[in-house]
Amino acid sequence: MKREKGLLIVLSGPSGVGKGTVCSALREQDTHIRYSVSATTRHPRAGEVDGVNYFFKSKEEFERLIQDGEMIEYAQYVGNYYGTPRAYVEEMIEKGHDVILEIEVQGAIQVKETFPEGVFIFLMPPSLKELRNRLAGRGTESVDLIDSRMTVAREEIELMDKYDYVVENDEVHLAVDRIKSIVTAENCKKDRLIHQYQSLVKE
Amino acid sequence: MKREKGLLIVLSGPSGVGKGTVCSALREQDTHIRYSVSATTRHPRAGEVDGVNYFFKSKEEFERLIQDGEMIEYAQYVGNYYGTPRAYVEEMIEKGHDVILEIEVQGAIQVKETFPEGVFIFLMPPSLKELRNRLAGRGTESVDLIDSRMTVAREEIELMDKYDYVVENDEVHLAVDRIKSIVTAENCKKDRLIHQYQSLVKE
Repeated sequence: MKREKGLLIVLSGPSGVGKGTVCSALREQDTHIRYSVSATTRHPRAGEVDGVNYFFKSKEEFERLIQDGEMIEYAQYVGNYYGTPRAYVEEMIEKGHDVILEIEVQGAIQVKETFPEGVFIFLMPPSLKELRNRLAGRGTESVDLIDSRMTVAREEIELMDKYDYVVENDEVHLAVDRIKSIVTAENCKKDRLIHQYQSLVKE
Repeated sequence: MKREKGLLIVLSGPSGVGKGTVCSALREQDTHIRYSVSATTRHPRAGEVDGVNYFFKSKEEFERLIQDGEMIEYAQYVGNYYGTPRAYVEEMIEKGHDVILEIEVQGAIQVKETFPEGVFIFLMPPSLKELRNRLAGRGTESVDLIDSRMTVAREEIELMDKYDYVVENDEVHLAVDRIKSIVTAENCKKDRLIHQYQSLVKE
């Protein structure tokens, strides 16, 4: 039985937990999930394609989109805007496709305000010690920066209460399986199906 | 991360939808789910073992269990009692095991009253026509009996609103996968995990 609308799935979690890795592994599987493309004001890098890697916008265009309520969430980072355009997400959902956004915790909280019916998944490290190891393992960040990221991570974990699900990222393939299960289960939710089944009884 | 308590999963749906077949197929898989054993006052058949196929009780024992609130749900059928004893279910849940009950719709509604926190799954036929085909396919029932079962089925489908999930039994292996996904997703629910994660932050 076909659902009327698709799901908006928001995958988020503290910096360093492995959101990007998990989302890439999910994309490699045949799940019928659509992936939202972010918009940014930063310049395209060599090989990046507009509409594939990002929607590339001028600062003026981006700010107009914000003004017009066309960004579901956005943030500024190192002088550039990054955000999620509403149009693609809404079009996919209306067509009955499930769409996933992989975004930062603050962005997820913004999405929650406009899409409370979304499915909010918080990706958790197995422990805070392990999160520190992962941040340190990148080899690109000073001890001070790692300390400050850990402080932010603790604050972000406090926001877990605003999410629907918590997925432990102990192993990437296990985290991917859990996310796929959540999407399947959400598609079996009675509230999403009952209207269609009630019409079945009236056949 | 280990959950404190297990889930009570109630699998139900109209007569003929294939609850028994789906539950048997689920049991053949390695899911860590425990299966509740029903109690009955009917006599054991050849080969049936007390505590495995059923808990066999006298009528007086069964009625005392009902009086003492020791049956989660029960019904009478052809002069015998059938029901789900509370003790096994509660023991498994307390130990952190997920337990599944495969029961009739009226029983599920009874369970909902005492275990509102349970996970209630309604197994649906792909269509009412298909349900009629399955009932007729048994070859054991008259057209009149099939008609009356179809009337009951329509009434039961009206009770779908009391469930959490609707799983279509189009193919047994697909229904089993959906149920496994629901169990996985329920075990990732934030409300079931947040207390443990909050203590993680205080490490």
